[in-house]
Amino acid sequence: MENEKWLLGIDIGGTSVKLAFLSEEGDIIHKWEIPTNIANNGSSIISDIGKSVHQKLAELNVPHEKLKAAGVGAPGPIDQEKGVMFEAVNLGWPDNYQLRNLMQEAVGVPVAIENDANSAALGEMWKGAGKGAKDLIAITLGTGVGGGVIVNGDIVHGAKGAAGEVGHITAVPEGGYMCNCGKTGCLETVASATGIVRTAKALLAEYEGDTKLNKNGDFTAKDIFDAAQADDELALITVDSLANHLGLALANIGSTFNPEKIVIGGGVSKAGDFLIGKIGQYFKKYAFKPVGESTDIVLAQLGNDAGIAGAAWLAANKN
Amino acid sequence: MENEKWLLGIDIGGTSVKLAFLSEEGDIIHKWEIPTNIANNGSSIISDIGKSVHQKLAELNVPHEKLKAAGVGAPGPIDQEKGVMFEAVNLGWPDNYQLRNLMQEAVGVPVAIENDANSAALGEMWKGAGKGAKDLIAITLGTGVGGGVIVNGDIVHGAKGAAGEVGHITAVPEGGYMCNCGKTGCLETVASATGIVRTAKALLAEYEGDTKLNKNGDFTAKDIFDAAQADDELALITVDSLANHLGLALANIGSTFNPEKIVIGGGVSKAGDFLIGKIGQYFKKYAFKPVGESTDIVLAQLGNDAGIAGAAWLAANKN
Repeated sequence: MENEKWLLGIDIGGTSVKLAFLSEEGDIIHKWEIPTNIANNGSSIISDIGKSVHQKLAELNVPHEKLKAAGVGAPGPIDQEKGVMFEAVNLGWPDNYQLRNLMQEAVGVPVAIENDANSAALGEMWKGAGKGAKDLIAITLGTGVGGGVIVNGDIVHGAKGAAGEVGHITAVPEGGYMCNCGKTGCLETVASATGIVRTAKALLAEYEGDTKLNKNGDFTAKDIFDAAQADDELALITVDSLANHLGLALANIGSTFNPEKIVIGGGVSKAGDFLIGKIGQYFKKYAFKPVGESTDIVLAQLGNDAGIAGAAWLAANKN
Repeated sequence: MENEKWLLGIDIGGTSVKLAFLSEEGDIIHKWEIPTNIANNGSSIISDIGKSVHQKLAELNVPHEKLKAAGVGAPGPIDQEKGVMFEAVNLGWPDNYQLRNLMQEAVGVPVAIENDANSAALGEMWKGAGKGAKDLIAITLGTGVGGGVIVNGDIVHGAKGAAGEVGHITAVPEGGYMCNCGKTGCLETVASATGIVRTAKALLAEYEGDTKLNKNGDFTAKDIFDAAQADDELALITVDSLANHLGLALANIGSTFNPEKIVIGGGVSKAGDFLIGKIGQYFKKYAFKPVGESTDIVLAQLGNDAGIAGAAWLAANKN
């Protein structure tokens, strides 16, 4: 154990950077956070991370040689082989940022980089809900809808790094809401936290029964799930609509890939088994039968730690 | 060249077995067919193949040592690692048929097996329309709709071998036609040769204008495409409906894994660039923008030779 090396997992977000030292088996040994300083085009983010890592090692009285390698998850499209981040709007970095090289200098060990949604998917595959699954899709239902596609134990990037953009699957072919991506009817417009609130408001405008939801439209996705679990009819119709859209999209992905697991995470997934159960009903309705029987839909398990676990997987497997 | 070995490609269909000797680069050197004898639970199919291969070598005055390895594409789900065919309804074989071992005995070289649609996809990847693409989906529009999914240069089988079942993507969520698989609204019910004829008949029943299509409903998919290319309104509406369903399904697959190429083959694809153009319009409408720009939809190039080319790829890469 004395000789065992540590992996460094780094998960860069728009407001904070999550960091951890992990064992080579992916167990978290020390975990901490620092703020993300996006001032001056995010120019201090990497040096802040480097300083913090060295400082933490000193605090723990652990020599730098203990570190084997590092992995980084970052918000935006990347070129893993070249170690470049194409763009990182939330961090202020210039296009084609040399993330890997700069981070290697800052932390002093080999670095592998990945998009943050993919990194979280790898984390769930390695240490979370996907444990043991080599073919897996991870879907994050948050403000938007993100995803990571894993085939044969590795992330699929696709022709232009646009694989895993499940939030932009067209769920409503005609007359759907406008999406930030420029299309209409994206899954994200109906299955994100934002989307489900919008659906409820639209239904509320024409609803004449009683409901626990605030008639002024002042409610959150959580309020809708709470009301649905308390048998509120309008909330149930709203959740059903989300489950229908999501079940159909996942079934069609399923009939194409037949993954072992589809892992659902993100804020909306806090609705838990109640939500998974409803999605599962529609999934089985729409999926090719052998897929409905062999692809499991499960809740993510790692929460905010998925990104650093996936970054550690990158450290162990991509350096 | 004298020392170069040959690969044996075998494509087993319900009425004939296609065979070929190919170079290690996948070029066909000799190609022939024998009938598939499904009498007695298909018990002579493999020995017929073995005899035919030995006979052809003798005819060509080529020693058996010239053969390096063989690959087999067969109609049904298989377990590639175990070399077993789970079921082969069209050939009469019993379940869990030891296809690989039996074929190895018959042809006297190592054998790798694969499902026939996947084998055709590999053929197109190696020597056809997908040449050079490592991430590719091949779709066959025939009596039904089949597919093969290739990621990182290899077939995706999925949890229970049900990957690539794109014909059973749910294209019509409510009120679709019954499919052979037991679901309703499958892509196959609207995008196969059978499906497009049915769509045209349904439209014809309510159509009051002139049309080149036989009012008794006595027409084929080819008749519909011919009429559409001659600007027949009803035929154009029918083709548009197929292109819309197919474009949406392919766009959603595209947004999930951003393949370099989507290769369209099978009888219906004889409609050629006319069909590809219409599918492409809907694909771009429904796909995440970077996917619409980076995933190409192309016609299959190998026709009936795709299966033997893919079988030869298996021979070269899976033995």
